[in-house]
Amino acid sequence: MIDRARLEAQFAHMKAISGFGEGPGIYRMAFTDADWQGRTYLMRLMWEAGLSLREDAFGNVIGRMEGTDPTLPAVLFGSHADSVPGGGNFDGVLGILAAIETARSLTEEGFRPEHPLEVVLFLCEESSRFGAATLGSRAMLGALTVEETHRYRDKDGVSLYKAMMARGLAPDALGKPLYTGPVKAFFEVHIEQGKVLEHEGKEIGIVTGIAAPTRFRVRLTGSADHSGATPMELRHDAACAAAEIVLAAELLAQAESAPPAVATVGMLQISPGAMNVIPGSAVLGVDVRSIDAAVKTRVAKRLQTRARDIGARRGIDVDIEPISDERPAVISPKVLDFLEAVAKDSGCSYRRMPSGAGHDAMHWAERVPTGMLFIPCKDGLSHNPDESAKMEDILTVTRLLEEVVRRASRRDTHLE
Amino acid sequence: MIDRARLEAQFAHMKAISGFGEGPGIYRMAFTDADWQGRTYLMRLMWEAGLSLREDAFGNVIGRMEGTDPTLPAVLFGSHADSVPGGGNFDGVLGILAAIETARSLTEEGFRPEHPLEVVLFLCEESSRFGAATLGSRAMLGALTVEETHRYRDKDGVSLYKAMMARGLAPDALGKPLYTGPVKAFFEVHIEQGKVLEHEGKEIGIVTGIAAPTRFRVRLTGSADHSGATPMELRHDAACAAAEIVLAAELLAQAESAPPAVATVGMLQISPGAMNVIPGSAVLGVDVRSIDAAVKTRVAKRLQTRARDIGARRGIDVDIEPISDERPAVISPKVLDFLEAVAKDSGCSYRRMPSGAGHDAMHWAERVPTGMLFIPCKDGLSHNPDESAKMEDILTVTRLLEEVVRRASRRDTHLE
Repeated sequence: MIDRARLEAQFAHMKAISGFGEGPGIYRMAFTDADWQGRTYLMRLMWEAGLSLREDAFGNVIGRMEGTDPTLPAVLFGSHADSVPGGGNFDGVLGILAAIETARSLTEEGFRPEHPLEVVLFLCEESSRFGAATLGSRAMLGALTVEETHRYRDKDGVSLYKAMMARGLAPDALGKPLYTGPVKAFFEVHIEQGKVLEHEGKEIGIVTGIAAPTRFRVRLTGSADHSGATPMELRHDAACAAAEIVLAAELLAQAESAPPAVATVGMLQISPGAMNVIPGSAVLGVDVRSIDAAVKTRVAKRLQTRARDIGARRGIDVDIEPISDERPAVISPKVLDFLEAVAKDSGCSYRRMPSGAGHDAMHWAERVPTGMLFIPCKDGLSHNPDESAKMEDILTVTRLLEEVVRRASRRDTHLE
Repeated sequence: MIDRARLEAQFAHMKAISGFGEGPGIYRMAFTDADWQGRTYLMRLMWEAGLSLREDAFGNVIGRMEGTDPTLPAVLFGSHADSVPGGGNFDGVLGILAAIETARSLTEEGFRPEHPLEVVLFLCEESSRFGAATLGSRAMLGALTVEETHRYRDKDGVSLYKAMMARGLAPDALGKPLYTGPVKAFFEVHIEQGKVLEHEGKEIGIVTGIAAPTRFRVRLTGSADHSGATPMELRHDAACAAAEIVLAAELLAQAESAPPAVATVGMLQISPGAMNVIPGSAVLGVDVRSIDAAVKTRVAKRLQTRARDIGARRGIDVDIEPISDERPAVISPKVLDFLEAVAKDSGCSYRRMPSGAGHDAMHWAERVPTGMLFIPCKDGLSHNPDESAKMEDILTVTRLLEEVVRRASRRDTHLE
């Protein structure tokens, strides 16, 4: 049975593993000591849940409960445990703890699945450290190359390759799928990271599609002149150009409504960064999302054109470097109906809704029947130290996941 | 006689003392090892020029050539040797090397001034490290308090107090004037840091006024939400608010023309600075200048009002912290006529012009007869690795300074 006290203790433990002293909130960025400490703890929980563990070359962890027919495709469920800097204790953590608790509850009751069950802990889901998201699931599915592990770097210039080597992993094994077994379905539980469920008073969101990001970097090169002696009309101020691009991103996203889009300049560095020097260069990191691929591409393309126009007008060089361009994922009607039936039978309140945030599930959705369940989070806050979710909702979705897995593990449940 | 080869060697030596390996240009920020190495070298040059040296509690260095009447007010001349990060080899350095060469030339010819002559090396003129400029001359004149040395901090949080203590200086002695002797006049030579002289083909600029900066910090606090799951209309994006303020600063300065003003956001930091998190906070460093105090105040006040309006509209807290508010300096007609007479007699081409940049001279101008001479710099570039000045112009202004000092040292030259 899903155990409230056990879950509470586990959330408290994960909160304690947070990279102390760096500020409020969780600091468990991918491949850091805190991330590795969390991974070790979750592996112990998987072991206590009766699962047999294996790791892949990227460091993803899989805990397997054997099926009565081990040759049948496995039912996968799980999430990630890394965080953004100053993040909350539920983003990712909810999904992996709910998955482990589900396995433990099934083990305790002596449940024997027909299809094998696999709890998956994905590494490096957040893009905060290396500028690209869901790297663990991309690696599992063969969609992360060795070249990319050299190219992706953190703020200190450390490459993903180097960070992986420092953890004894095998980046040179990437490029082909690390997960090769047959899969029946993948399920992920997550906090909404928005305000819709809270606003409508629903306990559960059944995700209809996932708005994967398009990301690019804009480098601006103007002229670092003296701030006092350079008249306004002779300036090539990279901060002013950057400011126009930030506001253009906002306006272009606001202009989309069917479906909506969002655009964010989450990274912005200007140099040399002195009070008496006109900024000579700037680097912006842009993130554009929509569950509609065409809308997302339109916003990204228009913004890039606008950035080049702004640069041309101001005498500033504009260099645009693509970082990622993921396809939004669509959840199949069959999986939506399946999840809705489970929700209905459980008696909880629910609604169908899109996901504005990207998730590991979006990579699986392209290949196997995939489903996602959301619960509300307080004030819609996520990637924020004040991120919060109610234990009642956590229990509701964990019980739901247990039932989803139980049904999906049956040979006579068809999800394709 | 002013010696070209000697000056060339001294500029080359100062260029070599630049904080290696940090990027192109000079890295000799105040109180760093490179700054201290430069100071030691300049003290040696002063000694070789026959001056007797003393230091004050702030670290400013004064080299004195005694007058035939030691009780007469001294004629001071000099500049600074610290740099912005990635600065050039002429800003400040020109003024102190020209001053030392002047003293050396006078010593070599056996010149005996009636008034004592003093070459002054000012410490910490650039605001790059501690966010406030001309601290050495402020300290000399009693306009820098102990409290301020605790408050002014660099990017790493090191206070001016601590940086001074690390150099064996005496910050606790500040608050009252460190320079207490009578002063007849102060003269400073500097590169223009603008394009006016170059554009008009003049060798010398006689400075009519100095546009001291008004500086303040703007702290914005919004909400660090998830970049994918937070719709545009529910955001409190500190980077968007910062962008509006950057562009408002540009527009408000552009609106002034008689006399003109400049406004620069040279520092801009956004947090947390991750690709998938809406910036929850931002800090801007604003610098506003004009040689007209009323114009400068108008731009600064309007910008602060605009910043508060932008914050109110976006649901973002705006906190404005004043950093400095220096009075622009006006050069007296008597000193202007004196300098013009010297320039005319030398046969060089010159024009009167305002200084857009702040200088140590502006603090002296409030108290004693003060004059400044400019030479052109290539493309008007300063605070930039490509900053450059011609040796011909350097020799012209050094010879002019020598004549200025020679005449000013006479008892029958009246500058008040």
